[in-house]
Amino acid sequence: MARPKLRLIPLGGLGEIGKNMMVMEYQDDIIIIDAGLMFPEEEMLGIDLVIPDISYLLEKREKIRGILVTHGHEDHVGALPYLLPQLNVPVYSTKLTRGLISAKLKERRALSGAKLKLIPPGGKITLGRFRIEFFPVCHSIPDAAGLIISTPVGTIVHSGDFKLDYTPVQGKPTDLSRLAQIGKEGVLLLLSDSTYVGLPGYTPSEKVVGEALNQVIANAPGRVIVATFSSLISRIQQVIDAAAKYQRRVFIVGRSMSNTVRIAMELGYLNAPNGVLGRIDELHRMPRNKTVLIATGSQGEPTSALVRMANRDFRHVHIHEGDTVVISATPIPGNESLVNRAVDNLFKQGAQVLYSDIAQVHVHGHGSQEELKLLLNLVNPKFFVPIHGEYRHLTLHGKLAESMGIPKENIFLLEDGSILELNPQVGRIAGKVTSGNVYVDGLSVGDIGSVVLRNRRMLSRDGIVVVIITINKQTGKLMGRPDIVSRGFVDTRESRDMIEESCELVAKVLDHGGSRPADWSFINNKVRDILNKFYYDQTKRRPMILPFVVKV
Amino acid sequence: MARPKLRLIPLGGLGEIGKNMMVMEYQDDIIIIDAGLMFPEEEMLGIDLVIPDISYLLEKREKIRGILVTHGHEDHVGALPYLLPQLNVPVYSTKLTRGLISAKLKERRALSGAKLKLIPPGGKITLGRFRIEFFPVCHSIPDAAGLIISTPVGTIVHSGDFKLDYTPVQGKPTDLSRLAQIGKEGVLLLLSDSTYVGLPGYTPSEKVVGEALNQVIANAPGRVIVATFSSLISRIQQVIDAAAKYQRRVFIVGRSMSNTVRIAMELGYLNAPNGVLGRIDELHRMPRNKTVLIATGSQGEPTSALVRMANRDFRHVHIHEGDTVVISATPIPGNESLVNRAVDNLFKQGAQVLYSDIAQVHVHGHGSQEELKLLLNLVNPKFFVPIHGEYRHLTLHGKLAESMGIPKENIFLLEDGSILELNPQVGRIAGKVTSGNVYVDGLSVGDIGSVVLRNRRMLSRDGIVVVIITINKQTGKLMGRPDIVSRGFVDTRESRDMIEESCELVAKVLDHGGSRPADWSFINNKVRDILNKFYYDQTKRRPMILPFVVKV
Repeated sequence: MARPKLRLIPLGGLGEIGKNMMVMEYQDDIIIIDAGLMFPEEEMLGIDLVIPDISYLLEKREKIRGILVTHGHEDHVGALPYLLPQLNVPVYSTKLTRGLISAKLKERRALSGAKLKLIPPGGKITLGRFRIEFFPVCHSIPDAAGLIISTPVGTIVHSGDFKLDYTPVQGKPTDLSRLAQIGKEGVLLLLSDSTYVGLPGYTPSEKVVGEALNQVIANAPGRVIVATFSSLISRIQQVIDAAAKYQRRVFIVGRSMSNTVRIAMELGYLNAPNGVLGRIDELHRMPRNKTVLIATGSQGEPTSALVRMANRDFRHVHIHEGDTVVISATPIPGNESLVNRAVDNLFKQGAQVLYSDIAQVHVHGHGSQEELKLLLNLVNPKFFVPIHGEYRHLTLHGKLAESMGIPKENIFLLEDGSILELNPQVGRIAGKVTSGNVYVDGLSVGDIGSVVLRNRRMLSRDGIVVVIITINKQTGKLMGRPDIVSRGFVDTRESRDMIEESCELVAKVLDHGGSRPADWSFINNKVRDILNKFYYDQTKRRPMILPFVVKV
Repeated sequence: MARPKLRLIPLGGLGEIGKNMMVMEYQDDIIIIDAGLMFPEEEMLGIDLVIPDISYLLEKREKIRGILVTHGHEDHVGALPYLLPQLNVPVYSTKLTRGLISAKLKERRALSGAKLKLIPPGGKITLGRFRIEFFPVCHSIPDAAGLIISTPVGTIVHSGDFKLDYTPVQGKPTDLSRLAQIGKEGVLLLLSDSTYVGLPGYTPSEKVVGEALNQVIANAPGRVIVATFSSLISRIQQVIDAAAKYQRRVFIVGRSMSNTVRIAMELGYLNAPNGVLGRIDELHRMPRNKTVLIATGSQGEPTSALVRMANRDFRHVHIHEGDTVVISATPIPGNESLVNRAVDNLFKQGAQVLYSDIAQVHVHGHGSQEELKLLLNLVNPKFFVPIHGEYRHLTLHGKLAESMGIPKENIFLLEDGSILELNPQVGRIAGKVTSGNVYVDGLSVGDIGSVVLRNRRMLSRDGIVVVIITINKQTGKLMGRPDIVSRGFVDTRESRDMIEESCELVAKVLDHGGSRPADWSFINNKVRDILNKFYYDQTKRRPMILPFVVKV
């Protein structure tokens, strides 16, 4: 009989950035690493969030021993409020991560019954046949972990999201000696973060940003407003430290920023000297050059504090000439235009704006090529699976591993849903499970399918034309002229004649002396065809045509 | 009596990238510099193109002496097919620019009657009280020009789009000595390109890219496919040269690429040794490592040759393992996701993909900070107006000029529509004229207003619900149950119960023993309110509600 194999199944995070989720399975034991969400792409119109399809897990619910969460970012924890009620398994994480998960579950009313277990940095836990060690890594949020997983088939190292910052602002550098030790003992498989594999060299330390922020806050003639991710707690700490140093008070602005700061302070991950933090209602009494604001909006989110300030639409805070705005983040792909617009509007109000294109006010949280090579070198795995990245990142990371001597046949470029089967000698891709995107739109999870999205796309391009056709049930005859209403298609006043003409066209086609009731089913298609052609000839647009027959 | 003043009015290009257009007015003479288009931003749903609002010019039509076009890019010439029929004035440009304008007018059936005048590089022309010299500048298209304009008030220098490439692939470097000479003689106003003011240092020469392309084509094991802008003729020349050097044949793929190559060859701006260019139907007979393709699609445009190849949807060309794809362009902001997706799909098909993040396969066509400073230094103007950029670029360029000693009060950050009045001593902003975006959607120019766009946005987010209410004309009574049809709102099968329930809700509210006909007008609002609330409570979505009353 064949020896049992280890199965590795990504349900998210491979081929798209976000909604990270990895399933590990050995006989009757399953563990899950991370349960993240993805923000919708441009063509997912009206969608709020995207989470992984877990049909596969629902079938094997009783085998799942727990979810291991590497850190508290949305793309690693954001799906928990939607998935935990379905899976109801314990969640293991470090302290800050647990605090953030707990707040998130509470917000979505999914906290009661959730089993959130605390693992200290370096802590270990046994789940079925898996023994897992959380080893500390540096990332753009404190308390981030990678995982060393002992399995009956061999040791697996999962990097989490990481970089090698030797002078981090908070916590310790990534634990390289532990990794080296594990590497010496022999590692079957390394799963490693591919997000920034495109960048040569090393990612700069957070310290660089601290120095830049210090300079800005020391020299700014007026108020300083720093916009960043609410999860970037070390950045917030740096701003607080610099403000304290130069006798400025700090005001936290925006709901998500206030929430995270509160949690991080309660748990001891953020420290402010007495009297440095101020309440927003005290702000107007302070001289401008004695204040620093920390706000959300670094991605140009339309409802964020920074964007509302930029649009003169924020009650508490107005931008004045001489203020300095620091955008301490880079735009996530897709957000560039929103961020650019916010920067423009801030400049228009007389602010000096510093952003990552023109000043060293941000570094990202993922390792660049040399760091990824160092990890590969220390861990020295037999098999390699690049994770966390779009397909091009995975490809480049695979090539990087190959260039360091890992045989090509031991490198697996998985896609979401791929099954990788491993024994100590060989790995192979053994099929695919159901996987993909589940859309969250408003209250509902998963009811939005491709039809709804296709319709939204069509509506967004050329609008809709509704045609109401009233027909006598007995005679099958048209009763009066059809009515046509359009939205998002043409200017209804300017195009009144064209719409009139199209009414008459429909009337003429339908009014050929009465159809029998049996013909009604053809009316819809007929009207659709005629109007499609007519409107396209007239306008080169293709609105959605929605005929409706009223029988009286 | 006050001496007449020069008026400078940007109708595009200031505050947004694209649709460049500058109006210069002195007493009874008006000249226009450039007439470009802009590609729609994300929220301009369904819009094809954006051109400047020229209401101001239409009022003063008889004063306009001509349009001067600096170079053949869409953001400088693209509005001509729409505006020339309204203005009917001569257009002055260099040879290649004229060729491209002519092709564009022909395509849009606006060529007949157009007066396209040829100006040789360095050539001069007098239009009313303006005397204009076209001076050669380097840009990412050959035959680009800046303008030296003598006016009764003083000399004005307009940089066009430019960089200072001392080793350009085609044409001559930007004519610095002519600029220095003019600077010595005294310049009233400099208008200078701000697009890349954010970048420190110098923009690399096209030569750097040539070397990279040579290397790639020399060493590629299979076919090489280079995607770039069709207007980037020097890049196309470099690819042809490298292919010829390494005995490969070149195939031009895609309609706009073929058109531009044809025009550029006819006019002598592109040269290929005999036998290097092949016809696409010969491609399949050639060994893969003897071929180079040049294609459109560098912006991830869904219908472009490259994207269709990436999606295995291009009849003539399939990507094989071992092929090399070079994306010789950077994504225009907003196109990042499209480009990323194309790169991912090319990798998936086994191609090696080189793009500007990971290889030196593109340089852009605009000057960086040091080049902009050099221009300011040589021209040494009294007044300065940064042009071609979003507001942050203009601000940064203004600060750059200030740092070089131009007094702050002589630097004008204009917005589209601002009127800058100049005399030899003083400049001031003297009001605003009508300006803005005119949307081209299908055949129509300008009929799409804010209502249509708002409707498209609303439809794109949560779809539409159409409610048909049939009422007896005489009694005012509801005839049967209302009908509800939705598109893009919810999955219609899964949500059948909710839709049913909403039908009954409407019926109940309307069926209170008959309304008098006078009440009909209230029905719409009532139905809208009820359904808005009901659907929001049920789904947290806000579809467009379109009630329609049929009276029989």
